[in-house]
Amino acid sequence: MAHHNLDNIDTSEYPHINRGLDGIVAFSTTKSSIDGQKGELIYSGYNIDVLAEKATFEEVCFLLWNDRLPNKSELDELKNELISQRNLPKPVLEYIKTTNKNAEPMAVLRTAVSMLSDFETENSGDKAKDSRKHAIAMTAQIPAIIAAFDRSRKGKKIVSPLKEGSTAYNFLYMLNGEKPGDAAEKTMDLCLILHAEHGMNASTFTARTICATESDMFSAVTGAIGALKGPLHGGANTAVMNTLLELEKEGDSADAVAFTKKKLENKEKIMGFGHRVYKTFDPRAFHLRKMSKKLSEETGHEKLYEWSEDMMKTMKDEKDIDPNVDFFSATVYYSIGIQPDLFTCIFTMSRVSGWSAHYIEQSENNRLVRPRALYIGEKNLEWTPVEKR
Amino acid sequence: MAHHNLDNIDTSEYPHINRGLDGIVAFSTTKSSIDGQKGELIYSGYNIDVLAEKATFEEVCFLLWNDRLPNKSELDELKNELISQRNLPKPVLEYIKTTNKNAEPMAVLRTAVSMLSDFETENSGDKAKDSRKHAIAMTAQIPAIIAAFDRSRKGKKIVSPLKEGSTAYNFLYMLNGEKPGDAAEKTMDLCLILHAEHGMNASTFTARTICATESDMFSAVTGAIGALKGPLHGGANTAVMNTLLELEKEGDSADAVAFTKKKLENKEKIMGFGHRVYKTFDPRAFHLRKMSKKLSEETGHEKLYEWSEDMMKTMKDEKDIDPNVDFFSATVYYSIGIQPDLFTCIFTMSRVSGWSAHYIEQSENNRLVRPRALYIGEKNLEWTPVEKR
Ligand SMILES: CC(C)(COP(=O)(O)OP(=O)(O)OC[C@H]1O[C@@H](n2cnc3c(N)ncnc32)[C@H](O)[C@@H]1OP(=O)(O)O)[C@@H](O)C(=O)NCCC(=O)NCCS
Ligand SMILES: CC(C)(COP(=O)(O)OP(=O)(O)OC[C@H]1O[C@@H](n2cnc3c(N)ncnc32)[C@H](O)[C@@H]1OP(=O)(O)O)[C@@H](O)C(=O)NCCC(=O)NCCS
Repeated sequence: MAHHNLDNIDTSEYPHINRGLDGIVAFSTTKSSIDGQKGELIYSGYNIDVLAEKATFEEVCFLLWNDRLPNKSELDELKNELISQRNLPKPVLEYIKTTNKNAEPMAVLRTAVSMLSDFETENSGDKAKDSRKHAIAMTAQIPAIIAAFDRSRKGKKIVSPLKEGSTAYNFLYMLNGEKPGDAAEKTMDLCLILHAEHGMNASTFTARTICATESDMFSAVTGAIGALKGPLHGGANTAVMNTLLELEKEGDSADAVAFTKKKLENKEKIMGFGHRVYKTFDPRAFHLRKMSKKLSEETGHEKLYEWSEDMMKTMKDEKDIDPNVDFFSATVYYSIGIQPDLFTCIFTMSRVSGWSAHYIEQSENNRLVRPRALYIGEKNLEWTPVEKR
Repeated sequence: MAHHNLDNIDTSEYPHINRGLDGIVAFSTTKSSIDGQKGELIYSGYNIDVLAEKATFEEVCFLLWNDRLPNKSELDELKNELISQRNLPKPVLEYIKTTNKNAEPMAVLRTAVSMLSDFETENSGDKAKDSRKHAIAMTAQIPAIIAAFDRSRKGKKIVSPLKEGSTAYNFLYMLNGEKPGDAAEKTMDLCLILHAEHGMNASTFTARTICATESDMFSAVTGAIGALKGPLHGGANTAVMNTLLELEKEGDSADAVAFTKKKLENKEKIMGFGHRVYKTFDPRAFHLRKMSKKLSEETGHEKLYEWSEDMMKTMKDEKDIDPNVDFFSATVYYSIGIQPDLFTCIFTMSRVSGWSAHYIEQSENNRLVRPRALYIGEKNLEWTPVEKR
């Protein structure tokens, strides 16, 4: 019999297995720095707190792609390019309209982004230039895909993108069919800034691994979307909201403390908590928590916020585990009227900037990513003809 | 200024960077064993030479998914399931028919596989059962996607799959519109066996990383296709054929030895040579070389085979580098009438068995894959308003 699990074998004979590649440094980067002890996050030189206060999402895109802030004319140029790329190719729209209405939004987004590449076949021969072009195309079109699928599955008319306005503004407009107010635009923009980049998380690592075979940026981003979709990664924000809505169903008797304790007793994971790198409060969660408080009061969802706080305290007391970026982003998105199963798509809208930045960086100094696996099965078994098995 | 490349910094201050994760053991596995010194390859207990002689591709699929060979009724059941899953959902066919005819076949395959998931929304709640179902669905449908796109882009009528016959037989039938002979079927089947599984190569590693976020198998395989597409990985087989066809254009004056030396002098990589793990002759290349010789004689492509041998000797003499799996598979596929830009798709048709096997294995004993990156940029830069930049 083959050894099916490592508990049964004497691992001292074997090389060290780096489960989950925990602590293994795979690349150098100028894109972001995470200090998991201090709770500090930096994008290409700038602290996330500074960016949250001062920057726009478009500035953050430029920063991540170029490792410096744009001047006025560079920023205007980028904004115009993004606006000019917002329209989806017809076959992509056709797919969005005709596919299964019950399909998962993240799966539809993965397919539609993959499809975009069929219409980006012109190659300038200059890799850096093409990368920049593809990064802009995907950043501009992902919001349009999300909004189009959401409206289409609800039987609503798809709204064409605006020829003006920020990524955040245009997205809310395409999603809701009406122009958003200043506060909603600002909230969405801040969410985009906070989710843009985060070191060697599973989706960014997937993007770099695909890039390292010298494959194209659409392949890298498509793969990254597939990774972000998982509930241990970006999919957690949808799961958090579903947990809170479960509590809401319980009405007045809802008790978030008891609920959390019970889950922990059953050895269930509480979504939106824990992080491989942060061993303290995630600085992004700090901003999102503030937003969540404010918005839930404004929209009459105080209860959701209170339960969140109760869960947070319980997790701290019971397990000493802090919330991550996905915990408070859930109530923020919910408060601005976004449906829970779109939350991970919103994360994608932002993170595509970081993925493409890492693609650019990886292709400038590449080596194939190819680790090893330890074989723990049998060897040289003898063949038995099928009739004798 | 940020340090843009590691050559400029004192790396002794920094943790060790595992470039390309070379030598890092990330998982344990029962799927395959590669001994790069001996040139030995084992799939779940059986040496590749034994499988090449005795097995069929369907038996190899069962072996990789279950870590044992099927008995007669299990094998029949699997074959029937594969046959019953060959038809593509209508929107997938619609996409294949209407997309850009100049799109890359691997990009179309990536999109179409991603799209399949929209029609696989029933969840049994039993992860292992669903995984098996999805593995069969993709293994059955990938050949249909490849054949349909190739015929459609050429303006030919798409051929519906047969309700009988092996994966190899049915694929050649759908591609060419006529039933293949025994020899062609056998060749194709052997190619599928040889490419099925190969440890922690970049695409399989991508699939496991995506799986480790608890994302679905369609996401994992879609990401893996994006990685395989790259010329440093599966894309190499198309590149090899393009090199040989360049030589063919030179006609009688073609000199593969001089051609190879010249490329090496220019520091160009020769596609189809070199491997992260094999430091000797790849056992798969041994079988493919034999097939390439036989087929090129039968089809009057002796010259292509001779040039391949010349290139091989030159690479050995000049660099002591051996051919990999992609080198001789190129002429084999060419000899059975497959167009060079489909070669990597054929690789996918086979490797999906290994990817799905690793998905199954990873989900049985999972941990999030999340390495680190070393930040080499600046920190805590001060914000300058856009007008002042
Ligand atoms: C993010 C995450 C995958 C990090 O995983 P990791 O680095 O592999 O951490 P581990 O799984 O090794 O966890 C370490 C310990 O904390 C516990 N833990 C971590 N996150 C937990 C959570 N959300 N709820 C309950 N326990 C948790 C683990 O059970 C483990 O306990 P043990 O040592 O008693 O077995 C993990 O915290 C998690 O699954 N969180 C929930 C999903 C989520 O919110 N993801 C979004 C991340 S931005
Ligand atoms: C497969 C491959 C990516 C493995 O890469 P790797 O483990 O990172 O190997 P390295 O790039 O570190 O190569 C080691 C040395 O061999 C050389 N080398 C490797 N493959 C070579 C090739 N195909 N042609 C010329 N030189 C090659 C490298 O230039 C390097 O030389 P140096 O030490 O003088 O700089 C690499 O061999 C390659 O690019 N081959 C061509 C593409 C291919 O056929 N891929 C299919 C793989 S199945």
